[in-house]
Amino acid sequence: LDKEEHLGIALSGGKDSLTVLNLLNNLSKQNPKIKISAIAIDEGIHDYRDKTLKTAKEFCDQISIKLNIYSYKKEFGLTLDEMLKILNVKPCTICGIFRRYLLNKKSRELKFTKIATGHNLDDECQSIMMNQMKNNIGASARLGPKVGIVKDEKFIQRIKPLYLCTEKEVTTYAFINGLLDNFTECPNVSRSYRAQIRDMLNQMENKFPGTKYSIVNSFLQTLPMLKEKFKHESIKACVKCKEPSSKDVCNACHYVEKLKIVCEK
Amino acid sequence: LDKEEHLGIALSGGKDSLTVLNLLNNLSKQNPKIKISAIAIDEGIHDYRDKTLKTAKEFCDQISIKLNIYSYKKEFGLTLDEMLKILNVKPCTICGIFRRYLLNKKSRELKFTKIATGHNLDDECQSIMMNQMKNNIGASARLGPKVGIVKDEKFIQRIKPLYLCTEKEVTTYAFINGLLDNFTECPNVSRSYRAQIRDMLNQMENKFPGTKYSIVNSFLQTLPMLKEKFKHESIKACVKCKEPSSKDVCNACHYVEKLKIVCEK
Repeated sequence: LDKEEHLGIALSGGKDSLTVLNLLNNLSKQNPKIKISAIAIDEGIHDYRDKTLKTAKEFCDQISIKLNIYSYKKEFGLTLDEMLKILNVKPCTICGIFRRYLLNKKSRELKFTKIATGHNLDDECQSIMMNQMKNNIGASARLGPKVGIVKDEKFIQRIKPLYLCTEKEVTTYAFINGLLDNFTECPNVSRSYRAQIRDMLNQMENKFPGTKYSIVNSFLQTLPMLKEKFKHESIKACVKCKEPSSKDVCNACHYVEKLKIVCEK
Repeated sequence: LDKEEHLGIALSGGKDSLTVLNLLNNLSKQNPKIKISAIAIDEGIHDYRDKTLKTAKEFCDQISIKLNIYSYKKEFGLTLDEMLKILNVKPCTICGIFRRYLLNKKSRELKFTKIATGHNLDDECQSIMMNQMKNNIGASARLGPKVGIVKDEKFIQRIKPLYLCTEKEVTTYAFINGLLDNFTECPNVSRSYRAQIRDMLNQMENKFPGTKYSIVNSFLQTLPMLKEKFKHESIKACVKCKEPSSKDVCNACHYVEKLKIVCEK
């Protein structure tokens, strides 16, 4: 963290993001130069996000933090549930693209200096392994406690304060501090590749405690080299929305276009 | 391979090493500047190595290749089975140290220019994952199709011609060419960490075909950076045996010493 920050906490209403908010809110009380706000994305996932957003709102009210909510419905015209009825894509792929897109764009408009997310050691470990098992090493270069390779004024730096905390540790903290939502899990997760990797890693960790720490620590040793290798990847501005993108048309605009085409048919 | 080679094929008598021998023997017939010999290490594993060495001898006789056999019993005074009754160590750890030690020393004495081993894609994938899950990234820098980081005149370069062949592919080749031994497996394997990693990888490959290829291909993209990072590790000569070592006393002499001390008690 720099001397003066306006941190945006990316809130889902789950235990991880509520823990980050609680920790950074306590920190900001000791340091008047750190200002905290919250941002949440309502993807429109029936019987899940509505519940976690209610938790998020209540907690933000309780600690007097402003919560900014943006929805897929309002920004893109459709909820995620509606999109998934139209497009034949994996839920987490399209959801991730739209969420990161809104998170970055709206955080910039809100003048956040950084975005803090609730990603923990388990999440990172899964991402490392997923990229490796899909031979997507370039994506791993963008992982780490400070996300990204190339600095771009249109990109708001994302940070992961819980990077070295296991999911168990975060859950314990959240439980003790009364932050724990009722163990909700996104209904799309079970269909994801990530869930299979998560189960495999949990099995290995049970048999060989320390496995997850080792994977992340091994990764942190190679990360500076990966960032160096991929630092020459250029960042363009999407020709449609002007948001930063590695391609001429960003992934979000690509899917918005696809949804329109399918809807018009 | 360079223009003139005296290749030593490290033979266990299993399908992988017999396949390498068969392939390189065929190659050498087309190229008179490539000479082939075989080397085998008899660790002294009852009811296993005696059988595979019989297969190895028969095959070498059949194709008129000289087979040089060195045993733990003769070189160190004890078989592996005897060592394991004395020392409380993992079988594969101590066995690997002594085998690599003899393989290098005897290959140098036999004036081999390179040692070819039967390691396949599955073996490499397991090693990559083991090092990662034990946070042993320096060991990964020594992996790859051409083993090692630092060149040393006392180290005989080890190469893995089957590096990109899966275990299934090698087994198929060995079966079709009549090289297949009766699926013997070292009795110590089931106790090893490697076996657990192997099972995990097989499960992932079954669910997501291509996983093993992706892991090795991802690894090959980072390997040059890892070699660069660890190239400054110095190679010493072991004060006891003068063989190359990263420590003052090499691992082989360390365990020989330990065995002596325990035996004397």
